[in-house]
Amino acid sequence: MNLPLGYRFAALHAGIRKNLELDLALMVSDPEAAAAGAFTRNVVKAAPVVLCERHLKQSKGRCRAIIVNAGNANCATPTMAKVARATASATAKAVGVPVNRVLVSSTGVIGEPLDEKLIIEVLPTLCGQLSQQHFPEAARAIMTTDTVPKTAWSVVEMPEGEVRIAGMAKGAGMIQPKMATMLSYIFTDAVIPADELRKMLKTVLGRTFNRISVDSDTSTNDTVLLLANGASGVAVTKANRERFESALGNVAESLAVAIARDGEGARKLLTIDVEGAVSERAAETIARAIANSPLVKTAIAGADPNWGRFLSSAGASGVEFEPSKVDIHVNGFLVCRCGCRADFDEPEVQKTMEADEIHLRFHIRGGGSGCARFWTCDMTEDYIRINAEYRT
Amino acid sequence: MNLPLGYRFAALHAGIRKNLELDLALMVSDPEAAAAGAFTRNVVKAAPVVLCERHLKQSKGRCRAIIVNAGNANCATPTMAKVARATASATAKAVGVPVNRVLVSSTGVIGEPLDEKLIIEVLPTLCGQLSQQHFPEAARAIMTTDTVPKTAWSVVEMPEGEVRIAGMAKGAGMIQPKMATMLSYIFTDAVIPADELRKMLKTVLGRTFNRISVDSDTSTNDTVLLLANGASGVAVTKANRERFESALGNVAESLAVAIARDGEGARKLLTIDVEGAVSERAAETIARAIANSPLVKTAIAGADPNWGRFLSSAGASGVEFEPSKVDIHVNGFLVCRCGCRADFDEPEVQKTMEADEIHLRFHIRGGGSGCARFWTCDMTEDYIRINAEYRT
Repeated sequence: MNLPLGYRFAALHAGIRKNLELDLALMVSDPEAAAAGAFTRNVVKAAPVVLCERHLKQSKGRCRAIIVNAGNANCATPTMAKVARATASATAKAVGVPVNRVLVSSTGVIGEPLDEKLIIEVLPTLCGQLSQQHFPEAARAIMTTDTVPKTAWSVVEMPEGEVRIAGMAKGAGMIQPKMATMLSYIFTDAVIPADELRKMLKTVLGRTFNRISVDSDTSTNDTVLLLANGASGVAVTKANRERFESALGNVAESLAVAIARDGEGARKLLTIDVEGAVSERAAETIARAIANSPLVKTAIAGADPNWGRFLSSAGASGVEFEPSKVDIHVNGFLVCRCGCRADFDEPEVQKTMEADEIHLRFHIRGGGSGCARFWTCDMTEDYIRINAEYRT
Repeated sequence: MNLPLGYRFAALHAGIRKNLELDLALMVSDPEAAAAGAFTRNVVKAAPVVLCERHLKQSKGRCRAIIVNAGNANCATPTMAKVARATASATAKAVGVPVNRVLVSSTGVIGEPLDEKLIIEVLPTLCGQLSQQHFPEAARAIMTTDTVPKTAWSVVEMPEGEVRIAGMAKGAGMIQPKMATMLSYIFTDAVIPADELRKMLKTVLGRTFNRISVDSDTSTNDTVLLLANGASGVAVTKANRERFESALGNVAESLAVAIARDGEGARKLLTIDVEGAVSERAAETIARAIANSPLVKTAIAGADPNWGRFLSSAGASGVEFEPSKVDIHVNGFLVCRCGCRADFDEPEVQKTMEADEIHLRFHIRGGGSGCARFWTCDMTEDYIRINAEYRT
């Protein structure tokens, strides 16, 4: 892994998660980084989200350190704001930076008080472990019900030199980011001013983290942070911006898709392409409706090319279209032609649907140029098991 | 059961469902009835829905017969319109009424051709069985994945005499009626003009069938029909309208709640009351968001008073409210006070949540007068099992 220069990471078990997994991560940028963030649109916001928004405003988009705990969302408790502030202050002191250069995230159960002492007491140890090499441990420490850590990286060759991008993400349930998503941190050593970074993040999110859904729930803690510390000395300019953004988009897409694939209880990744809608937004609305339909998600689990459900869920999306112009392909097989059953070999299609990646193409004949790709996962009995027994 | 006068019912097994259950129902009103209908808003509409809309328009809201089959939705096939027309024509001939006095419904799998001969051939037998006493059999013949038939009735004592209301409904999955719901037929022998009947149906639906959700999917076939044949000789007038509407509301509510309770795989009915929103519509939006959250529905399945999920799902509804003003009661226990955990005995509340009826009260302190009641069910592993294996 060719990690971006000027970032160090550390992780340990602070005792916030009940098991003995890593549950606290510190991420430090040694040159101060430009930073952009995107956060949940839920009106119930966890204290760390509110604190991040405030610090990014105060610092005009500058960041030196991110502290993240798993196991407790620090949300909906009387002490949440105090705990987030205390965590930020102690981290600022330990790292030796102004407090508004510190960003804080939490993820886990809602409504249980988070004891900030668990974090504050181990900060010296955590700081002592900081190293570029601990990026994978940090990615592991932000997990909750995730079954695998999610990382992605890219090296971008530009005429002026190489820059690197590396990202991590967590999330498996309560996922339908409308604005941001679960937790994700993306680092680059390119030189990018904060206002440019914000625009870039918005563009990239629109087609990646905002295009995934596990269970249609939007969390109180969703956070994506993008840092650019300039340690490579290579600036992103008008001339090379497209190349950089494309690499950044790939990293973000990898992370977003990894979240959909690791959806709670999921065994399959479902990629949905909608084409021929009147606009990209209409295509996205149709794709999201298909992705969020429990009947679609259970059909995918059952390897059932039940195209009637795909068509019906699209029809309930609120977007107008002519059902008799719709073709649906599953794994390349035409299963619905002009809104009716196509002539396909059902056992053959079912067999391809036993794979762990399913592709659904929803095409409106003679429609507009609006298209969108969306990712979700199947819904299995394990989703129920995980969520009915979450706290027991 | 004190059934409305002037209606006759019949049901038999026509071979549309693979098992040997009843799958065809005929309902006849002997005096011609005024009729009002409400139908799915899905842009993918089954042919019977389109036919009902056309016939109600042509007849200016008059109806003599309803023919309903289960086991096949007659939707998304090249022949669907022809099949619906042929079914209506044959029924009209068999009953001896004009074709636009016949309404047709279908429910079941989407995209498989329905063989109208299965229906047409048994129409003479079906007509021979017509009797007021066969109301329960008709209610059974419209079922698909329902585990119980759903009926409700009421006798309304009015100064001018008695009138009777009786209704039946079916539905267990693909249920989040936005306009109408699954199939439901409500009959009264009161005298009510068609235009009055339409207004009445709209009012009643808004607070009953439009306030339930099983899995947030809206079907292609949703239909509610309300018939008033005047056989009692008692007219609903300005003076007694409130009493009649209240009884009609109770019948519709019973049927709607029965659908939520019988949700696919459900073991519990969840009743959600939202109070203190800025408007009834805002309250309904919050209640619907809570009801549709898979995390809420799995928490209910797990008897888990996980109020953080209730609060978070409300916060993601798109309605603005102040989280710190929210109280949440579960089965009468205050579990969330001012947006934070209340002081409650968790095992005690969990124990009450093992019952098959759960009540959730979401109250915004010092808020507006908007309130709404909504019904849904828990989501269990059986929901997945039923829907992943539906066609196998």
